[in-house]
Amino acid sequence: MGNSSGLLFKVTTFGESHGPALGVVIDGCPSGLPLDLEALQADLARRRPGQSALTTQRREADQVEVLSGLFEGLTTGTSLCLLIRNQDARSRDYSQVSELYRPGHGDVTYALRYGVRDYRGGGRASARETAARVAAGAVARQWLSARYGVEVVAWVDEVAGQRASLQSSSPSREEVEASAVRCPAPSDSERFEQMILEAKKAGDTLGGVVAVRASGVPGGWGSPVFDKLEADLAKACMSLPACKGFEVGSGFAGTLLKGSEHNDPMRAAERAQMSHPLTPAGAQRAEQVTNNAGGLLAGISTGAPLLCRCAFKPVSTHFLQQDTVDHTATEQSFNNRGRHDPCVLPRAVPLVEAAVLLTLADHALRTEALWGGALGRSSGEAR
Amino acid sequence: MGNSSGLLFKVTTFGESHGPALGVVIDGCPSGLPLDLEALQADLARRRPGQSALTTQRREADQVEVLSGLFEGLTTGTSLCLLIRNQDARSRDYSQVSELYRPGHGDVTYALRYGVRDYRGGGRASARETAARVAAGAVARQWLSARYGVEVVAWVDEVAGQRASLQSSSPSREEVEASAVRCPAPSDSERFEQMILEAKKAGDTLGGVVAVRASGVPGGWGSPVFDKLEADLAKACMSLPACKGFEVGSGFAGTLLKGSEHNDPMRAAERAQMSHPLTPAGAQRAEQVTNNAGGLLAGISTGAPLLCRCAFKPVSTHFLQQDTVDHTATEQSFNNRGRHDPCVLPRAVPLVEAAVLLTLADHALRTEALWGGALGRSSGEAR
Amino acid sequence: MGNSSGLLFKVTTFGESHGPALGVVIDGCPSGLPLDLEALQADLARRRPGQSALTTQRREADQVEVLSGLFEGLTTGTSLCLLIRNQDARSRDYSQVSELYRPGHGDVTYALRYGVRDYRGGGRASARETAARVAAGAVARQWLSARYGVEVVAWVDEVAGQRASLQSSSPSREEVEASAVRCPAPSDSERFEQMILEAKKAGDTLGGVVAVRASGVPGGWGSPVFDKLEADLAKACMSLPACKGFEVGSGFAGTLLKGSEHNDPMRAAERAQMSHPLTPAGAQRAEQVTNNAGGLLAGISTGAPLLCRCAFKPVSTHFLQQDTVDHTATEQSFNNRGRHDPCVLPRAVPLVEAAVLLTLADHALRTEALWGGALGRSSGEAR
Amino acid sequence: MGNSSGLLFKVTTFGESHGPALGVVIDGCPSGLPLDLEALQADLARRRPGQSALTTQRREADQVEVLSGLFEGLTTGTSLCLLIRNQDARSRDYSQVSELYRPGHGDVTYALRYGVRDYRGGGRASARETAARVAAGAVARQWLSARYGVEVVAWVDEVAGQRASLQSSSPSREEVEASAVRCPAPSDSERFEQMILEAKKAGDTLGGVVAVRASGVPGGWGSPVFDKLEADLAKACMSLPACKGFEVGSGFAGTLLKGSEHNDPMRAAERAQMSHPLTPAGAQRAEQVTNNAGGLLAGISTGAPLLCRCAFKPVSTHFLQQDTVDHTATEQSFNNRGRHDPCVLPRAVPLVEAAVLLTLADHALRTEALWGGALGRSSGEAR
Repeated sequence: MGNSSGLLFKVTTFGESHGPALGVVIDGCPSGLPLDLEALQADLARRRPGQSALTTQRREADQVEVLSGLFEGLTTGTSLCLLIRNQDARSRDYSQVSELYRPGHGDVTYALRYGVRDYRGGGRASARETAARVAAGAVARQWLSARYGVEVVAWVDEVAGQRASLQSSSPSREEVEASAVRCPAPSDSERFEQMILEAKKAGDTLGGVVAVRASGVPGGWGSPVFDKLEADLAKACMSLPACKGFEVGSGFAGTLLKGSEHNDPMRAAERAQMSHPLTPAGAQRAEQVTNNAGGLLAGISTGAPLLCRCAFKPVSTHFLQQDTVDHTATEQSFNNRGRHDPCVLPRAVPLVEAAVLLTLADHALRTEALWGGALGRSSGEAR
Repeated sequence: MGNSSGLLFKVTTFGESHGPALGVVIDGCPSGLPLDLEALQADLARRRPGQSALTTQRREADQVEVLSGLFEGLTTGTSLCLLIRNQDARSRDYSQVSELYRPGHGDVTYALRYGVRDYRGGGRASARETAARVAAGAVARQWLSARYGVEVVAWVDEVAGQRASLQSSSPSREEVEASAVRCPAPSDSERFEQMILEAKKAGDTLGGVVAVRASGVPGGWGSPVFDKLEADLAKACMSLPACKGFEVGSGFAGTLLKGSEHNDPMRAAERAQMSHPLTPAGAQRAEQVTNNAGGLLAGISTGAPLLCRCAFKPVSTHFLQQDTVDHTATEQSFNNRGRHDPCVLPRAVPLVEAAVLLTLADHALRTEALWGGALGRSSGEAR
Repeated sequence: MGNSSGLLFKVTTFGESHGPALGVVIDGCPSGLPLDLEALQADLARRRPGQSALTTQRREADQVEVLSGLFEGLTTGTSLCLLIRNQDARSRDYSQVSELYRPGHGDVTYALRYGVRDYRGGGRASARETAARVAAGAVARQWLSARYGVEVVAWVDEVAGQRASLQSSSPSREEVEASAVRCPAPSDSERFEQMILEAKKAGDTLGGVVAVRASGVPGGWGSPVFDKLEADLAKACMSLPACKGFEVGSGFAGTLLKGSEHNDPMRAAERAQMSHPLTPAGAQRAEQVTNNAGGLLAGISTGAPLLCRCAFKPVSTHFLQQDTVDHTATEQSFNNRGRHDPCVLPRAVPLVEAAVLLTLADHALRTEALWGGALGRSSGEAR
Repeated sequence: MGNSSGLLFKVTTFGESHGPALGVVIDGCPSGLPLDLEALQADLARRRPGQSALTTQRREADQVEVLSGLFEGLTTGTSLCLLIRNQDARSRDYSQVSELYRPGHGDVTYALRYGVRDYRGGGRASARETAARVAAGAVARQWLSARYGVEVVAWVDEVAGQRASLQSSSPSREEVEASAVRCPAPSDSERFEQMILEAKKAGDTLGGVVAVRASGVPGGWGSPVFDKLEADLAKACMSLPACKGFEVGSGFAGTLLKGSEHNDPMRAAERAQMSHPLTPAGAQRAEQVTNNAGGLLAGISTGAPLLCRCAFKPVSTHFLQQDTVDHTATEQSFNNRGRHDPCVLPRAVPLVEAAVLLTLADHALRTEALWGGALGRSSGEAR
């Protein structure tokens, strides 16, 4: 259970860190999308280990093989399976871990839940699993961009409590990628890099915050009550490894404002946005002057950019001595070995984007169903 | 779409603020549970409007009628429908709103999505809808308590940036209820009450943070990857009206720690906890010395108490002048009228509990399925 | 579990035969549909007991109350709850049944599954539950008709092995309703009525077959592999009380044909039907000359009328002596008492229609999602 | 959409007839199951093409690679991915088909729904897709057998209207496999083989009926109302390629009986069967004397063997001349070429078993959730 996400743009992932392969099946990607495999591979390259001194030195090409759902370059609308073979797994690094439960990891909770577990590299609980999500997110990105002009960009916004001073509230992917830390504020980026390298040298790890912005999302996406768009975004982000917090728009800081300060006034925009056929002109042209709401009101998008932030705890695999118990309930002190990221943030940037992209793709299709079901077209009319 | 939650303990809500009734259908509550309707009614009374000067003066008895699924005092395992009639709706308060879009509300987004909407009192987007969730949460509470000894208590932890100084990390429901604000720190409670009344007097509103603690949750609940327990908790909480942020365990503050500070060391407990039949003794007895994790590792409960915090924005309905547009796209200034809460926090406490209870009930049943499917019993053996 | 159906046009029913009420929540009915409550009530009247000597004499007005989801005559797109109060339940008829398990009924299986059960009138397993499905089906009927021109008509095609000789392969609802048995072949209708009354007189019951035809269904509805449209139709029909068999198109009789006889040749129609934007003209104009397929190929509609048949066993509640066991495992002989249908067929006609309508509404919305997600419109273009 | 099945034992398939591979992800197989890969391979071998003169001569080893979810021989409870590479695809056989729509096939309906399609060998609509279902069914079989002692055996019961005269109502797998046609009545088997070979010689094809029996299924599996066990069995079987009809127990023939003939009387068995903790002794020991019900009452299993029958139309790919249209809407006469089965029945036997096995595995886990959630154990008690 729990390895799928989405109602209409449905993805199911499989694979362990040291098993033969990782992969994902996408059931619900619309047919007729020309899939750009180079762009997909480029998205995966951003998550790949071994990119810099800031990330684990495990070497994985993360080459995607398309097993189904693509014909003559176009998606067919049926199951799209993307496969990524593991190549550089070193299972011997984990021999000691097979008999004890590392603090901060899923070792003990998987043992409680499943009785048995693949302990090599964290098995299914490994961050390596996210390669499959990024691959699926890359497909969602191409469809959302081609169909709606949606663009999703994330960046490192805070490291260990230090917040970046961005010049622009809408950094481009190029600006983000120009920095090894993926922080588009050049001065902060350098500082953050130093902080991470120092922590690494000390055998320790850091945490921080990734921000994300989705532009081009039309108003009217989302659902009332349980499946609010912000709720599904929260779920998608909080399901990323090491994510411990999520906020949308003003978030926790917004609780310091008064209602009269927090509400975003509205004005009439020049251009009407797409919407339900029965929507009054006023709603189509209503535009928030500010964006404390983060692009979302009552679970549904306003047409303004979506803004979210995700807190990632410091990486659990540090190299200092730790106390724990082994599988016989004997208490043990141990030190981790192996290859690990001193800070998850740079590689978390593509993960957060993938989480947001998959959520948006699913809600886009839900909205198409609703709007497509509206009356007002003559029966039998070709669309 | 989007009016249901849960895979196995599945709830579907219906009803608008000024329609005939609100209600919920629970499909999946185990059979044979003796339902205590007085206790259920008491849970609803905590959410009810008109409890004090801090809340809206709308008067609703919120009397529950059980329409199905209960026979001779026991749940039957089939659809349990709970109905709450609306009694004190004053639709005339909303006549002005029918033609304009209130900032901070779902008026404009519902119009974009659905074309038409019930504007009276926010319609389906009203906080009144949460009565149905609280009713369902009360059923979940009784089952989780009787079957596992789970207890869920929430409280107001921050108002407008002021954090309460709690004596105990595990306040009781009685301590919470002793305060009109539902803050179990007596000195802070009084201060918070003053802050809210002052804001009310000024025609303005406040926000803040609700904390929640779930004790008695066994290790092993949750799912890997997408349906992590913290992800489903985040979704449930972020789907509450006005909730803009969520964190579990150390949350955003935890990003300031190093990995060596954040990891919770483990020791061997005296008593083994319930788990999968194949779980090694060491995992059953592993116990976190600290709880930065908030009771969750890699999406699965550890057996330690679950700890979460939810940020609620200041109530959008203040009484100062606001700028907006109407349904013809004409810009308008307006002032709200009617009866509203100056601060959502006291009444958000039972909502957060309901969100957590419903999520736990669902994951409890998922875990029963998994553990019940384990080999090791002889075929055909009576359970 | 198991009280909901549909992914996008999702219905959840509740209520027992002798409880306070029956009802249904529809989550996913498109907004803006003008709901004709008289037509809805007329659909329910066809299922109502007490219509003639052929049906049980229980008297129920089956008056529907709309609790939510309707505003100023239009559906709002949020949960639509329809409630039907029970009025003429005589629970004393079931006092003997509370302690024994009637053959052919769910008494024993509900006891095995749930431990406890509401034995009055079969509780949740009663055919009375289907009132809620018929109410939901009536909503689906109005939407499918207004949006696509779909029309669904069912009729009694066989009684106790005697097949009706229809003049037309597409009887109208009026022709069906003209007959007490709901068989649109006047001569057969009279004969069937006699057969049923004779069985009734003998304290016995009859079974038979209901046929159904759905016209106006566009090509392209359905899904490959597991959610084939015929598979979902089969599930919906086989979930009706007493239904033991289902077939589509040529069905069981089609197994006697050779492939060269069974395949429906195709010709080019004058008019292209609605479809995916990328569909070649040839597929839009392909038309089956015959219809052994019953309007479905590989799980997807062809544009030809859908044709299905459902086998209903003889009613389990006859009045002759039967052998069974009671709750202490003592063997007992008993005779049923109370008010019951001697043949389920006349009242099964609206049930089969409801099953088909709900399935079609769900697949219609799935198809709208897919087609709405197709590329080819300029980004941001108003629909 | 529509490529998944099951709520708790959830399978998602992918792959086309002439693409790189077929496969399935199982999410929900309980952990700790020792998976017998030889037995799994043996199950696949029964579906494999090229087994005899009765089946297509395409040569596929159908060798399964386990990509995830298995560690040291045991299932881990996380996504289990099984991959089967295609080896003997001859796409040139389909060059003519790329431009026209074959009668009886999904060519035209896929084109209507998706706009584009992989025409090679039927693409996703190919019967080759079922290899993935059979692989998943083999996993379900091993778990159901080890955990409950469930055994599922299917056989060819009718060919072109000729019904087999079985000696026993419960043929063994060995008896079925002893016959090339998979009919366990030796005399009929020979006759059926001749009929099929004659049809093949004439360039034509035959249809028929497959029967299936599931023994060892405990009472209490299934759900009321929409997810009746017979409804889910019907859906699973009707989603198999070429299946046009389904019946359970007495099925269509049962409509000829009177209620007094059809009801299965009950007696008290010696041995109580497993059930809900609150089930009265009488229900646990109630035993049907006959089995017209086919092991199911009101959607829930009785404990008696499940009995179903599935109608398969004659194979659509015959070699006689047919009339159809091409993608430009020009009418065409054509003859099929390539390698095809003259009768689907022998290879449909393992498909029907897989459909039943997957449905049972899902309902088994649903029942475990329900029974595991029952009160009566002390809180915190180890299971």
